[in-house]
Amino acid sequence: MAYSLAEIVTRFGGELLDDNGVTVSGVAPVERAGPQEIAFVSQAKYLRDIGSSQAGALILPPEGRDSDRRPRIVSDNPYLYFARVSTLLNPAPQPIPGIHPAASVHPQARVAASAAIGPGTVIGEGAVIGERSIIGPNCVIGEHARLGDDCLLHANVTIYHQCVLGSRVILHGGCVIGSDGFGFANDKGRWVKIPQVGRVVIGDDVEIGACTTIDRGALDDTVIEEGVKLDNLIQVAHNVKIGAHTAIAACTGIAGSAKIGRHCMIGGAAMIFGHIEIADGVRISTNTLITKSLTKPGTYTSALPFSEHGEWLRNAAHLRNLDKLAGRIKELEKRISELEGNK
Amino acid sequence: MAYSLAEIVTRFGGELLDDNGVTVSGVAPVERAGPQEIAFVSQAKYLRDIGSSQAGALILPPEGRDSDRRPRIVSDNPYLYFARVSTLLNPAPQPIPGIHPAASVHPQARVAASAAIGPGTVIGEGAVIGERSIIGPNCVIGEHARLGDDCLLHANVTIYHQCVLGSRVILHGGCVIGSDGFGFANDKGRWVKIPQVGRVVIGDDVEIGACTTIDRGALDDTVIEEGVKLDNLIQVAHNVKIGAHTAIAACTGIAGSAKIGRHCMIGGAAMIFGHIEIADGVRISTNTLITKSLTKPGTYTSALPFSEHGEWLRNAAHLRNLDKLAGRIKELEKRISELEGNK
Amino acid sequence: MAYSLAEIVTRFGGELLDDNGVTVSGVAPVERAGPQEIAFVSQAKYLRDIGSSQAGALILPPEGRDSDRRPRIVSDNPYLYFARVSTLLNPAPQPIPGIHPAASVHPQARVAASAAIGPGTVIGEGAVIGERSIIGPNCVIGEHARLGDDCLLHANVTIYHQCVLGSRVILHGGCVIGSDGFGFANDKGRWVKIPQVGRVVIGDDVEIGACTTIDRGALDDTVIEEGVKLDNLIQVAHNVKIGAHTAIAACTGIAGSAKIGRHCMIGGAAMIFGHIEIADGVRISTNTLITKSLTKPGTYTSALPFSEHGEWLRNAAHLRNLDKLAGRIKELEKRISELEGNK
Repeated sequence: MAYSLAEIVTRFGGELLDDNGVTVSGVAPVERAGPQEIAFVSQAKYLRDIGSSQAGALILPPEGRDSDRRPRIVSDNPYLYFARVSTLLNPAPQPIPGIHPAASVHPQARVAASAAIGPGTVIGEGAVIGERSIIGPNCVIGEHARLGDDCLLHANVTIYHQCVLGSRVILHGGCVIGSDGFGFANDKGRWVKIPQVGRVVIGDDVEIGACTTIDRGALDDTVIEEGVKLDNLIQVAHNVKIGAHTAIAACTGIAGSAKIGRHCMIGGAAMIFGHIEIADGVRISTNTLITKSLTKPGTYTSALPFSEHGEWLRNAAHLRNLDKLAGRIKELEKRISELEGNK
Repeated sequence: MAYSLAEIVTRFGGELLDDNGVTVSGVAPVERAGPQEIAFVSQAKYLRDIGSSQAGALILPPEGRDSDRRPRIVSDNPYLYFARVSTLLNPAPQPIPGIHPAASVHPQARVAASAAIGPGTVIGEGAVIGERSIIGPNCVIGEHARLGDDCLLHANVTIYHQCVLGSRVILHGGCVIGSDGFGFANDKGRWVKIPQVGRVVIGDDVEIGACTTIDRGALDDTVIEEGVKLDNLIQVAHNVKIGAHTAIAACTGIAGSAKIGRHCMIGGAAMIFGHIEIADGVRISTNTLITKSLTKPGTYTSALPFSEHGEWLRNAAHLRNLDKLAGRIKELEKRISELEGNK
Repeated sequence: MAYSLAEIVTRFGGELLDDNGVTVSGVAPVERAGPQEIAFVSQAKYLRDIGSSQAGALILPPEGRDSDRRPRIVSDNPYLYFARVSTLLNPAPQPIPGIHPAASVHPQARVAASAAIGPGTVIGEGAVIGERSIIGPNCVIGEHARLGDDCLLHANVTIYHQCVLGSRVILHGGCVIGSDGFGFANDKGRWVKIPQVGRVVIGDDVEIGACTTIDRGALDDTVIEEGVKLDNLIQVAHNVKIGAHTAIAACTGIAGSAKIGRHCMIGGAAMIFGHIEIADGVRISTNTLITKSLTKPGTYTSALPFSEHGEWLRNAAHLRNLDKLAGRIKELEKRISELEGNK
């Protein structure tokens, strides 16, 4: 499917310049785009790269308005504009309605007639699948789980019993929703399991990455609000709440009962303690450990960048003697004060 | 199913006070419990919350014995007591014996008649499934793997060939038991795979979280002893041994041939070097790197809590110059000694 | 299958000493090997252990040539030699050609007649499976994905549409190849998904661990070159390139568009920023954060080993005041200079 720039501007706005009637059928990076493709430049500093591009059309920031003479769309937010154009040119897969004969759907499950259920997928008793939702191959949807409309589950996704998903939720391969929280009482050295009787409740427009795990609540629910985006290999423990439109990068772990605000951005491999609250709009850096509540927006960090190995060892050894070093400084201050008094 | 407090005390002990014959059918948090539910308070400081609770009954610590007049059970360990009551009120799923017609069980596998095999599950040649074990949908049990009695495998679990599980083992969705250890010899820059011919051997009463991976041994076995609890997204490398009743939180990695003691507690995202030994009863903090053997119990830490970003950068920059800072302190001490000698 | 040492030396070289015609049918550790087994010693310091071994034969380094009188092979690289012998004695599983009746293969997929497709496996339209490749149970191969010859996919592997694998690729249980990269544009606080239209392209002789996730490229491809070895639970983001023969240990995360060189060795739980380049032959320590490009080989580190908890807290508290400590040192230097000037 190809679109003219005029059609694109009609849909998404922006200023169209030097249109020659070209149609574009795909998006591509500036350096690789061909005459049927549209490329974008998000920041002025990359404008120098467009001269040699073969792209048939460009999406440019206002500063780049006159950097090129070919057909181009000027937008205040070229990256967002590109996202919209790319979605137009790469539409999401459409469901081919029906239940594959190699799926196992419980007779007491309710699957919308417009939904598509892949081969090998198992849908439990009382589960509900909404309109036009696509459940990829070899997924397992537990008893009484409920999925909204237009969801897309890739292959090998697991949803435990009674979990609830909104509409337009995207789940990637291997992710697990609703596994038991890690809750045990200790009985003279032996662990006694606490039944995890809460659910996972996921809002609309959430996307969850491959092999990410979200535990069900112990008593209350684990809640992922609308518009949250989780990358791959993230651990969300029981009774966590993640506020709307928060994005979290891969390998992050969130301990039990942490409450994360709305519109937060959390870097990769962050670790967040349990039972703390993080305000709306907080940013957490990669590799950062959050040990207590954050009551106001801002960026928080505890990551240590690398050094050359030998140099690192020399410095890190002192870190483990910092208390002594600090004591020596205090002692020096005392001695020098005495000397100064003696002058 | 509902139980009277008298029935509960008969089973689990504790002191029953002001019983009015109420029956309870569920557990709930203090603030949300209703008249048919029992709530618990684990610590004295939370006793102030019970006044407004609608709970029909309470489990209280000794200090709270007289904080309320409604039917209540006093226990020295309310959290453990609650675990037992919750297990009574939320019994584990019972197997509906039989092999689902959409399962693929090898004719030379031995599945107990009382076991339940879910749809899409594949059981290999020579595998053994014990009495009353439940194998969820789309699991794969490799050739000659052996599972004990009363195991519960949730969906999409993978067990490689020849691995051995005890009884009452719980495996969560997406976990992988018995994948090859990461063993290669280097041949002039190219990696030559070392066949991983050991197994994974898992004791009784072990629980393993979603997407946790446990590699088979290179020559000897990887061993997870009885009562061990592993959270989600944990990596256990080849030939690791984890001692009985040790609990490990999510995102932790344990390198090859590490031997971890009994009754240890290991925080999230800890990393443990290979070929070391950790004594019984050790506690390791979240985000901590264990680089050498720990010969005695205690708590060990290397986690750095966050700061506000700019403040962190200012301090972290000095960390990378600590060796120079330490040198300057030493120099100052020398100079000041000279001055003091000059007095 | 048993082999004489003479047959082994004919295949793999090395010096055979005191051969008595023994045949060996397996490999085992020195302390556990029996008369039908061959054991190896990689380093001179372990030679002391062989005296009590029951092994029928030994692989020894040159320094150990005369440490024992039993049949033995002397090799400059005993570990590599052992890898080859173990591979001979533990041959990889051979495919039993054919498509299991419980597999779902799209009529427009092309599966080599010599390939073996396990039960529950789903192969999409246009997918290609090469000669003698083994696809384990409950795998999902997306539309138009292409696998070379002699690949081995264990159970529950997911490969998304259009991804390409070379020959002799080994994928472990639960790994996910080709999930969408984590790419979103922000529209007034809401995230707009960027279609991820690149692929994952994997070279020959790559091995990928359990529950490791590799995202497809946003526009261009994510590339894993030949001979790369990835351990379990690794995150590879979109448009990453990993150079040939690089090995990466478990729990590592690599952010988008990072380019990693050839023959690198990356420790566990390393985190690598996006959009940086790492030279060939770099080594990165466990738990190390790489925040910028590395232009030359060497070892790079930012890991902090543990201390006893109380001691750690005392030292770490000063770390968060290092800027002030450094200021106090500077002040002391100034004061002492003044005193020295006063002398």
